[in-house]
This record gives sequence, structure tokens and C-alpha cells, in this order.
Amino acid sequence: MTGSLKLPLVRKLGAFVTFSEDELSVLTSLLQRRRTFAAGHDLMRQGQVDQTAYILIDGWVCSHKLLPDGSRQIVNFQIPGDFLGLRNVLLHASDHNIEPITQIEVSEVLISDLLEVFSRTPRLATAVLWAASRDEAMIVEHLVNLGRRDASQRMAHFLLELGARLSLVGMGGSGGYTCPLTQYLLADALGMSAVHVNRVLRQLREDGLVTFRSGHVTFDDHDRLVELAAFDPAYLDQGGPLMK
Amino acid sequence: MTGSLKLPLVRKLGAFVTFSEDELSVLTSLLQRRRTFAAGHDLMRQGQVDQTAYILIDGWVCSHKLLPDGSRQIVNFQIPGDFLGLRNVLLHASDHNIEPITQIEVSEVLISDLLEVFSRTPRLATAVLWAASRDEAMIVEHLVNLGRRDASQRMAHFLLELGARLSLVGMGGSGGYTCPLTQYLLADALGMSAVHVNRVLRQLREDGLVTFRSGHVTFDDHDRLVELAAFDPAYLDQGGPLMK
Repeated sequence: MTGSLKLPLVRKLGAFVTFSEDELSVLTSLLQRRRTFAAGHDLMRQGQVDQTAYILIDGWVCSHKLLPDGSRQIVNFQIPGDFLGLRNVLLHASDHNIEPITQIEVSEVLISDLLEVFSRTPRLATAVLWAASRDEAMIVEHLVNLGRRDASQRMAHFLLELGARLSLVGMGGSGGYTCPLTQYLLADALGMSAVHVNRVLRQLREDGLVTFRSGHVTFDDHDRLVELAAFDPAYLDQGGPLMK
Repeated sequence: MTGSLKLPLVRKLGAFVTFSEDELSVLTSLLQRRRTFAAGHDLMRQGQVDQTAYILIDGWVCSHKLLPDGSRQIVNFQIPGDFLGLRNVLLHASDHNIEPITQIEVSEVLISDLLEVFSRTPRLATAVLWAASRDEAMIVEHLVNLGRRDASQRMAHFLLELGARLSLVGMGGSGGYTCPLTQYLLADALGMSAVHVNRVLRQLREDGLVTFRSGHVTFDDHDRLVELAAFDPAYLDQGGPLMK
């Protein structure tokens, strides 16, 4: 059981609920059916009718919408411990695309698995609803990013959010984190061009705030970066379990 | 029991699950504790620590985020049948403000009510997760609105979405709907100025697509409006129950 405490999903949901041994064993039963997918090949497509969701065990993923004119908007990046396509199990058809950015390892979750888990432990149902609420709170922040923050604030907010999320699942600290995202991916997430992303990152580096180079983000001055972005991590709800 | 079938929440969740008599009675038990609030006075504030959510029975509400510089981004409007602040029951602190636009009637829901309901019927837990997923899918569309659609497409998409949502709870049809939203509210939702909103609405009216006047939206040419917005309502998932 000690090993399962290190699983990203268990660490993440542990921020909301202190699990009993029984609940922990129900939760880990969700993680049995493992699969591996290669980078660059869509895991799910907009409009696809599918009853499968996944829990990300290892690797990075992006969820995005394609528009009729061929442009795309990246909605969020998923990291270990995140659900992939939980909405798709519940909606008739996938409303977005899910694309692995690196090779990924996932656990398959069917709607019948969820119902089974929910009937065995309602506290776990609430924890899944918590995770969905937190995902929604993140998308709201991305909406505010596009609607109300300028390019530097937007980038700063994004890099800080990712850092906080990664640290919750043991993949980064206050100093920084390893990050496989390209400037093209950042551009499609933040509503900028890749050239603009490059310019904004250079400015933030020259100002001594943050350095994103060779697949690594280093917070050179975390406090000033937080101030620039007016970053308040409360919406990530990592303050410790509400349900004991 | 026949009366409860007309309740907006029951109509809405009925798009996902065909309820048994038992489930229907558990669901309506959630709607007992009624309260009324006046327009213009925040129901919840960003940062507020509260364990109460509401289900909207009657009236219109907006959820929004305030930024340190005083600007605001409206995230979504809530209509009868919608949850208000469901996230706030689960996160430590509210990540957004909730403001009644008209006088509203709501039912109070505590986290203990949700746990009670979830333990009595896991299918209802799944239905609540469906509603949260649908809310999230809407916010994703609003993100795409701001990131990738021009002002007319954005407005057209927004008015069509609202029409589809209202028709699900019996408050509008393919011809149009009653709508208390001001141009200031539309502006803060769509990332435009009120002057710009006015100009875009005039253009859509002159093009014979849609008329928004005196608190009423009339679809003058629904098909062409759908085409302009590239509106695909699949994300609203109103195609009929997935769970029989």
C-alpha cells in the first residue's frame, strides 16, 4: 500500500481527501488496466463517440479544439495524476482532441468502473468531482489569461500554474521543473505566435524572473514573477485535505 | 411527482439519465431549502470560504473573476437548473464571484447533502458530474471564443449557446428567447467594449441573422447564424439520455 501513496493520482486526490485503507484500495483498483501510447498520435478526437477515459500515469498530454479554419486552441496540458477525457465518458461525443506530447502511460477507465467505484465509496465520487472542479477552475484562469492579461502576465501565470501543479505530484519544486513543451505549444495555449512567445520568454529571462531553456523552467525570482502575474494559487486548492 | 418533472434541474439532468421514481425523489429532496436573493448583490465572492452551493430555480446569474486592476471577466451566465458555486463546496475558497442579474430563487446545497445523495444513488453522482462536465465544456467554448473567434462569430456563438441551453429547460425555442442581459454584461463576457457589442449586434441585425432588442433575442435566420458561428451544439450534450 505504501507504494500506491506515490502514484500521482493518489498524491493529487490526497490534497482533497485523507483516504482510508479501503478507499485507497478502491482507488488503486482504477489504475490496473495500463496502456502505453506514442507521442503525436491523437488519443481522442473531437466528435469521437467513446466511453473510455484515462488516468495519466506518466508523460505529458495536451487537450485542444480544432476550428473549421484549421487553427487550434490548446485548452490545457495534462500531467501525471490528471484525468484524460473524463468529460468524454459522460458526454455523447468528445468535445476536444487529446494528444500525447511525449510517450505516455495511462490507465483505462470505463463509465462502468466509475459507477462501481462511486457505489463503493461516495467520498471517492466527491474526490473525482473535486478534481473535475479544479480542472474547471484552471480553464477559467486560462479564460482570464486570454481575456484580461497581457502577454508577459499570461506567460508568467501559465508557468507558475504548471509549477504548482507539478509540485503537487512530486515533479518539481519552488526552483523549477522539467518541461517538454515547445514554443509552438505555448503559442497555441496562450493565443500568441511562436515568435511572440520567444520574445516574451527572452524578456522575462532578461528581467531576471524566469528562464525556460533546454526543456527546463527555472524560477530566477519566484516572488517577483508571482507579483507580475498577480498569481494567486488558491484555485488549485493544494492547501491540504478538506475531507479528513 | 409529475410536478417535479417540470423543475429545471430535473429537465436538465434528464438529458443525461432517465430517473427512476426513487432517484427522482432523492433529487427533489435536494431542492427543498429555498432562498430568494435580490439582483446586484453578490451571492458569493472570490476568496470567500464557504461550504454552500446553490441550485438556481428561477432568475439569471453571472459568475465572474475580478482582476487586481479592477477589470472583470465574466466566465458564464447561469440559468434555471444550473448549479451555482458547486466548485466552492469542494475547493477551500471560492475562485470566482457569483452575482444575481435578476431577483433569483435558489435551493441551498451543503457538501453533506451531496455526500448523502451520492451514497443513496451513485447514478445521481454521475449526473452531477455530467452537469459539471457540461459546464466545463461551455467554459472551453468561451476560451475558444476569446482565443480564436472574431467579434461577430463570438457573439453569434454566444447567443446560439444560450438559446440551446434555455430550450433544454423549457425557456425558449428555435425562434428565440427572453434575455435580461445588458450590453455591459455581454461586453464583459465576450472581451469587447459595450460600444463594440452595440456595433456587432447592429451588424448581425442588419444582416438579417439575429435581433436582440427590448430584452428579447429573435433568431431571424437560425441556419445562417449557425453557419457564421460554426456552432456545433454537441458539447451541450442535449441529445437525450446516455444512461437509461
